[in-house]
Amino acid sequence: MLQNDLLLRALRGEELSRPPVWMMRQAGRYLPEFIALRDKYDFFTRCQTPELATEITLQPLRRFPLDAAILFSDILVVPQAMGMNFEMKPGVGPWLENTIRTEADVKNIFIPDVEETLGYVFDAIKLTKKELDGKVPLIGFAGSPWTILCYAVEGKGSKTFDIAKGFCFENPVAAHKLLQKITDTTIAYLLKKIESGCDVIQLFDSWGGLLSPKDYDKFSWPYIEQIVNALANKVPVTVFAKGCWFALEKMSQSKASALGVDWTVSPQIARYLTKNSITLQGNFDPARLLSPPETIQKMVKEMIDKFGTTKYIANLGHGILPNVPVENAQAFVEAVVNYK
Amino acid sequence: MLQNDLLLRALRGEELSRPPVWMMRQAGRYLPEFIALRDKYDFFTRCQTPELATEITLQPLRRFPLDAAILFSDILVVPQAMGMNFEMKPGVGPWLENTIRTEADVKNIFIPDVEETLGYVFDAIKLTKKELDGKVPLIGFAGSPWTILCYAVEGKGSKTFDIAKGFCFENPVAAHKLLQKITDTTIAYLLKKIESGCDVIQLFDSWGGLLSPKDYDKFSWPYIEQIVNALANKVPVTVFAKGCWFALEKMSQSKASALGVDWTVSPQIARYLTKNSITLQGNFDPARLLSPPETIQKMVKEMIDKFGTTKYIANLGHGILPNVPVENAQAFVEAVVNYK
Repeated sequence: MLQNDLLLRALRGEELSRPPVWMMRQAGRYLPEFIALRDKYDFFTRCQTPELATEITLQPLRRFPLDAAILFSDILVVPQAMGMNFEMKPGVGPWLENTIRTEADVKNIFIPDVEETLGYVFDAIKLTKKELDGKVPLIGFAGSPWTILCYAVEGKGSKTFDIAKGFCFENPVAAHKLLQKITDTTIAYLLKKIESGCDVIQLFDSWGGLLSPKDYDKFSWPYIEQIVNALANKVPVTVFAKGCWFALEKMSQSKASALGVDWTVSPQIARYLTKNSITLQGNFDPARLLSPPETIQKMVKEMIDKFGTTKYIANLGHGILPNVPVENAQAFVEAVVNYK
Repeated sequence: MLQNDLLLRALRGEELSRPPVWMMRQAGRYLPEFIALRDKYDFFTRCQTPELATEITLQPLRRFPLDAAILFSDILVVPQAMGMNFEMKPGVGPWLENTIRTEADVKNIFIPDVEETLGYVFDAIKLTKKELDGKVPLIGFAGSPWTILCYAVEGKGSKTFDIAKGFCFENPVAAHKLLQKITDTTIAYLLKKIESGCDVIQLFDSWGGLLSPKDYDKFSWPYIEQIVNALANKVPVTVFAKGCWFALEKMSQSKASALGVDWTVSPQIARYLTKNSITLQGNFDPARLLSPPETIQKMVKEMIDKFGTTKYIANLGHGILPNVPVENAQAFVEAVVNYK
């Protein structure tokens, strides 16, 4: 059905002569055509208008020989649907006026009807699938419950999310209630995304690495695992828990089809920790795309040599940076496609 | 000579029935008496006035049965002495107007006479030693050259220090020149700190964990090792490279007497990676001090059970947070002192 199913074959662990490649935030600010739309429409308008989300999703595929599209959206559309009115504040980023700080706040949070509140995402998926016309698979995504809690409690981005952590450590009962509500919403949301046409799901646990291994096992992993278990018999699920090298072994024993790894984990260590049992995705340092293109090509080759071409998806170790020259992103993608 | 030499004995690897304890940033904003001085004197005035630096250093020792004092100062006094005029901007933190972004900028950076430029630090050490009167050892510290480069290039704090990383990846020759100048200054500075009375030196590589293992071996570790090698025959040196679990094995084979570990590394993994060959320091999650005191006591006991009482220094995994109640910090320190 798909003309290019390299990503799905990598997720199934089939033997391949080169890995598939896509880039986290490949539809992003380093692309002039993305900036042109960003200057015309605000962030959530772009997320909520299917034609815009589709157009942005397709932009990087017109430039580079990528093996997957990832739907343009944001992890915060889920808490928005739950009644948390996140805005994008210029110079601040995501911003929530009424933060969740007490048991009473948690009580007020509802589990929404996802078709009613997030219909625009499912429409964007259907439109994107039509436009993709079977060329490459479409990835849908969501944030991990822990990462969503971080924003809900803190109310904005943070280096350390100490308020969010403090909330969990002072009020574990309320924290677990909130995490469960986010989990239930996320499962309903992702099932509907799959029904609408997503071929692969990726979960982003952007802030899992702020927790100790013990607290990760309390506040993050059990909720991710609930989601993985609810989806894994429908489509392959990739879990990318940034900074969570300490959980790779445990995560590799779950029903996830692949694990994302960041650039602090060498390919050898990542394979060792996961006992070579699961597909890995990553892990080029996004800042390394600021190196000259020849250096990028050399480093990509080394990365694939180390990970191997099978059970591997070439990607960055986090989202592409806004100040990366387009030709450097191109050098990255082409180095994977031309790998020998 | 010292009435309480528990820290030095832990650093020598002697068998102990309980570990020594101190807290990173123990002289900090969680203490009302610190806030009182902060409201009267600006940040660098507090660093540059020996009487104030001494007073602040001693504040936590009056409250808690700590096994060490650490001189109140800042890692940025070193680049200041090199001509980089860092200020503390309210709401921003450290701020450098004339950032280092080119080879020419690096050329303009000089290696200062440390006695001339940093005499106030050595005076503060002598005064603090006098006041301490042999009660506990005094720790002096410096930032790692990589961490100082991060601030020098970026000009302020950052989650990811992408500009600093981009500078190194685009201009490795200039980056290495800058790192060597910082290293040379830091060695001269720390030798003088030791001569002035510091019993132990700690190096903070706060941003080493933003680098891949390969880039850590290029841009951070070789410079830390130069410093360790220059000091190790004089006093014990502790290296705390936050986020650098991937380098623990290599660091354990150096002349450092101890390695700091953050809370993402379990005691078992930390011992495994360092082959139980070196004293470890850490690693209570600072945000976990927001738990109720009984939880803190229980978790501290578990931590010492896992690390063991020998070759271990109880500490946090990073600086204490400003919003920690004083009684929680007390619970932490007392749980170590009363460990059975």
